[in-house]
Amino acid sequence: MYSETFEPRFYETDALGHINNTVFPAWFESTRTPIFRFFTPDLDAKKWKLIIASLTCEFKREVLYNESVTIKTAVKRIGNSSFTTTQACYQYGKLATVGETVIVQFDHHAKQSLPMNDVIRAQLSEHLLEGDWPLELDE
Amino acid sequence: MYSETFEPRFYETDALGHINNTVFPAWFESTRTPIFRFFTPDLDAKKWKLIIASLTCEFKREVLYNESVTIKTAVKRIGNSSFTTTQACYQYGKLATVGETVIVQFDHHAKQSLPMNDVIRAQLSEHLLEGDWPLELDE
Amino acid sequence: MYSETFEPRFYETDALGHINNTVFPAWFESTRTPIFRFFTPDLDAKKWKLIIASLTCEFKREVLYNESVTIKTAVKRIGNSSFTTTQACYQYGKLATVGETVIVQFDHHAKQSLPMNDVIRAQLSEHLLEGDWPLELDE
Amino acid sequence: MYSETFEPRFYETDALGHINNTVFPAWFESTRTPIFRFFTPDLDAKKWKLIIASLTCEFKREVLYNESVTIKTAVKRIGNSSFTTTQACYQYGKLATVGETVIVQFDHHAKQSLPMNDVIRAQLSEHLLEGDWPLELDE
Repeated sequence: MYSETFEPRFYETDALGHINNTVFPAWFESTRTPIFRFFTPDLDAKKWKLIIASLTCEFKREVLYNESVTIKTAVKRIGNSSFTTTQACYQYGKLATVGETVIVQFDHHAKQSLPMNDVIRAQLSEHLLEGDWPLELDE
Repeated sequence: MYSETFEPRFYETDALGHINNTVFPAWFESTRTPIFRFFTPDLDAKKWKLIIASLTCEFKREVLYNESVTIKTAVKRIGNSSFTTTQACYQYGKLATVGETVIVQFDHHAKQSLPMNDVIRAQLSEHLLEGDWPLELDE
Repeated sequence: MYSETFEPRFYETDALGHINNTVFPAWFESTRTPIFRFFTPDLDAKKWKLIIASLTCEFKREVLYNESVTIKTAVKRIGNSSFTTTQACYQYGKLATVGETVIVQFDHHAKQSLPMNDVIRAQLSEHLLEGDWPLELDE
Repeated sequence: MYSETFEPRFYETDALGHINNTVFPAWFESTRTPIFRFFTPDLDAKKWKLIIASLTCEFKREVLYNESVTIKTAVKRIGNSSFTTTQACYQYGKLATVGETVIVQFDHHAKQSLPMNDVIRAQLSEHLLEGDWPLELDE
């Protein structure tokens, strides 16, 4: 499981005084970088091999600007050419947002999906999460 | 059903040459404005009465920068204090992305959900979509 | 001179209840599209010929979410391989933000600037603004 | 002088394969947090005391996704109720972007500027930069 802690940015707030909900898919994308490296180790966008099939976000608590957040990233499902990540955003030690993303290995030139090889499947397997995200962050 | 047509913005593209997937929740938020007006007719953020419980996006086709998009907005479910919108993004006449959002009427001072009254329920009812979005935009 | 009127988006607000200042360079980019077409008529990003050398924004009044904005776009200077756009954002009929951008015609493969030809210079010339933006929008 | 190193985010790229120019004002905002703390130590947006009068960005080199950036933040000018920050974004050890921002201490209720007291002026003075940013990052 991967974990990244960072500060929210002021422009990510909205007029309700908290982080706008459209920001969470962006945070979840930016904290999937370690998984992107399985497919494109040097992160060169010209060699990119992934495409997003779907995403969901469930908002349990609001997130404020003036306190760091921790995002945990794990794998929930490993298919043939696709897999599902599950990610949890914690603030003040409590679960605030859960996001799931279905990602497909994809050949951007041939415009078709590509089965994942055993090396990548083994890397994804090391980060499988069984069950649900805990409601409290145990640090 | 509401419909809005606009041009993608250059900064909304990513290094894969198409609109980045994190942009769609933002487009779906911005095209829900007519529904926001049911709850806050003058759109004054200080009187805002809504909160997002969850969102999903399903990506069927990539969306490019250099062609306008049309987003259709309808209501899928009307609950007691919450409702679900369903939205479809079309480009080149074809369905590209579908988004669903669960929205709760919420008292931001008392920090609790608020049942919707009959006037609002009637307004939402006028925009109910039965079934799925068509794969082709019939203009 | 080009003019475009549109609604601010809710996610573009910040916790101060107005449009965040980092949004204006994005709005100014998105309303330069008619000028982008001089260089890339079909707006195909793969044939893009421009690069930004600098940008400035001057903030005179705050901009709110619940009222449309009008952005006017003109050309301030035409150089050899570069030109400067000047743009004004109006809300409630009053000048809110002025932005200037220095843009260079650029060969993205050779990684060097490219002198503009007479056709493009003539197109830019048709949109020259003499003097300053008026403080009130005369509609 | 403040320094912060972080990874660019994939959604911050554009179709030209590099970080879009509208992202830099956002990065410069997010790395001014230590200076925001002089005015609002707990960063509570409801007690915010600042407003932006103007910003400039000068782009010297493109910035790519797959390498961390370092942003240095200093103070260039201290006025009566306003000051100017200067910030430099480095990647691969080279200066890529310089941004200057004029910031005003502002009473958001009374809607007027507010002279800075001696404590804040002393804090700003500790971060004054004399001269220009070096072209190479000396680490």
